[in-house]
Amino acid sequence: MSKLFDVAVVGATGAVGNQMIACLEERNFPVKTLKLLASEISIGKKLKYKGKDIPVEVLSENSFDGLQIALFSAGGGTSQKFAPIAASKGCVVVDNSSAWRMDPEVPLVVPEVNPHAIARHKGIIANPNCSTIQMVVALKPIHDVARIKRIVVSTYQAVSGTGQKAINELHDQVTAIMNFREVETKVYHRQIAFNCFPHIDVFLENDYTKEEMKMVNETRKIMEDDSIMVAATAVRVPVFYSHSEAVNIETEKKISPAEVRELLDRSPGLRVVDDPKDLIYPTALDATGGDTTLVGRIREDISIKNGIVMWIVADNIRKGAATNAVQIAEILAEKYL
Amino acid sequence: MSKLFDVAVVGATGAVGNQMIACLEERNFPVKTLKLLASEISIGKKLKYKGKDIPVEVLSENSFDGLQIALFSAGGGTSQKFAPIAASKGCVVVDNSSAWRMDPEVPLVVPEVNPHAIARHKGIIANPNCSTIQMVVALKPIHDVARIKRIVVSTYQAVSGTGQKAINELHDQVTAIMNFREVETKVYHRQIAFNCFPHIDVFLENDYTKEEMKMVNETRKIMEDDSIMVAATAVRVPVFYSHSEAVNIETEKKISPAEVRELLDRSPGLRVVDDPKDLIYPTALDATGGDTTLVGRIREDISIKNGIVMWIVADNIRKGAATNAVQIAEILAEKYL
Repeated sequence: MSKLFDVAVVGATGAVGNQMIACLEERNFPVKTLKLLASEISIGKKLKYKGKDIPVEVLSENSFDGLQIALFSAGGGTSQKFAPIAASKGCVVVDNSSAWRMDPEVPLVVPEVNPHAIARHKGIIANPNCSTIQMVVALKPIHDVARIKRIVVSTYQAVSGTGQKAINELHDQVTAIMNFREVETKVYHRQIAFNCFPHIDVFLENDYTKEEMKMVNETRKIMEDDSIMVAATAVRVPVFYSHSEAVNIETEKKISPAEVRELLDRSPGLRVVDDPKDLIYPTALDATGGDTTLVGRIREDISIKNGIVMWIVADNIRKGAATNAVQIAEILAEKYL
Repeated sequence: MSKLFDVAVVGATGAVGNQMIACLEERNFPVKTLKLLASEISIGKKLKYKGKDIPVEVLSENSFDGLQIALFSAGGGTSQKFAPIAASKGCVVVDNSSAWRMDPEVPLVVPEVNPHAIARHKGIIANPNCSTIQMVVALKPIHDVARIKRIVVSTYQAVSGTGQKAINELHDQVTAIMNFREVETKVYHRQIAFNCFPHIDVFLENDYTKEEMKMVNETRKIMEDDSIMVAATAVRVPVFYSHSEAVNIETEKKISPAEVRELLDRSPGLRVVDDPKDLIYPTALDATGGDTTLVGRIREDISIKNGIVMWIVADNIRKGAATNAVQIAEILAEKYL
């Protein structure tokens, strides 16, 4: 019988934390004990895992004693403070926040792209930003054969990326509009119902948002190639689940749309959904609930010599967060613990 | 007293036709008589113009006798057949369909960009595609000073671009979902409520959609520069009114974001809405009901030497269709009739 592990989910009551628990169960992760941790606000709550009710415990410095793996999805501040504490006690952290992603000591991992980076962990492994994960899953196979020089990406991001409170906000705003009541904005700066806005995370000095710069910096780190140029526009759309991306790439070596289709269809974690004749292309609804990154609308970029345009869709809570974290934990469990 | 004209609106009962009537009234177009034309299905309907009820008449070959201007928004087939008939009777057509846009004999006009093209009309003037209009309004001033070599654009297009039936479809689908009823798709191939799909108009041989290729070909014709390279991804989003666009341009001459802001703010038909520090950027809701193209998120394209990224928003039914047509008619009336 294979080894079993004592596992914690930190931020267990959030949208991603919840999905982490579901993924551990679905993927039959070798769990010996499962500890669910959250802030005091969640005390008294119980969450289901394999038919059992597990009480949520308050996160503290002693939470990690005797554990081997902790999946964190509780925001940057919590990760900043508690991930090193867990690591110091021998509990390896897979962290979904942005706190540790660009730390040179911390591997930033998408299992389909750079699983080998896990080997050099020092107790913390970072889970990338959702919009970056699905993009690099689709682009890495192309980069390996044709070398990507430049990426231009515009995103269509679901509200679940902000968490359960934003899911509620879209629902409440739509209900208000349908009932001729006034719309309230609490989570977002602008109305999201029947609207789009190019504003995800905070604005930085260079007038890009932090979300957009994550797509630049995390892509380079995961693909292990700092020469890749990236320009991103990150846009929130009134969709509950799954992010879509319109991506234009320029490659050093010419690659045809047919070659890209063939290449991606046999690459891990991907499915090509692309038959324009029969009006087949992936949408957010198709990706939702699955772990596969869907790619369609693959065509030549007619504005440059060596270019491809494509449409990349994935469930931001699953592959974009929880599934990717559990996949990292699987490799960790199998090879390094 | 200035000259008055006998005007027809063809397709008067549609979303754009309706807005054309409103624009004629709002802009105080020099109307002597207004004739509202539509297919037999609309017989018995009356529409308001300056407080009067005007009965809708059936479009026929004799509809244009004695008229000087006809604004068409009744689909390609109707324009194909009736625009030459109107023109042959001395009634100048401003046509909102795609039927005549790429005809070398027909000027394709955005008044802020190429008003001079109206002079060479032979009875028909084409109104461009909505997503192209707002893009060229924003890009022409930049092209004039820095020469645009390449445009990469991803759109976020409202359902009203498809017409009233698609507005109803989004409303009905959202209502169904909010009431736990099954969603019906009639107008679109896929569910639009809480979803996005990269499919507008039909797919062509090169796997681009017709909408995407309109943005390539119409941009070149209106900007009068066939050397501009364009790659577009046209995406429908669950928004009722106004199209948004994420646009990356590469220019021959370096131009800074500050210069672009200053340039666009003093160019016709534009307003710069761009102050990231104060979370100010334009959204679909801001553009709706207005005739101004709003531009924000202006920043350097950090992935190339001479590049700018921006976010362009306009009301697709007004500036993207009705207002642009009425603006063309205004120039026609003032200078050429």
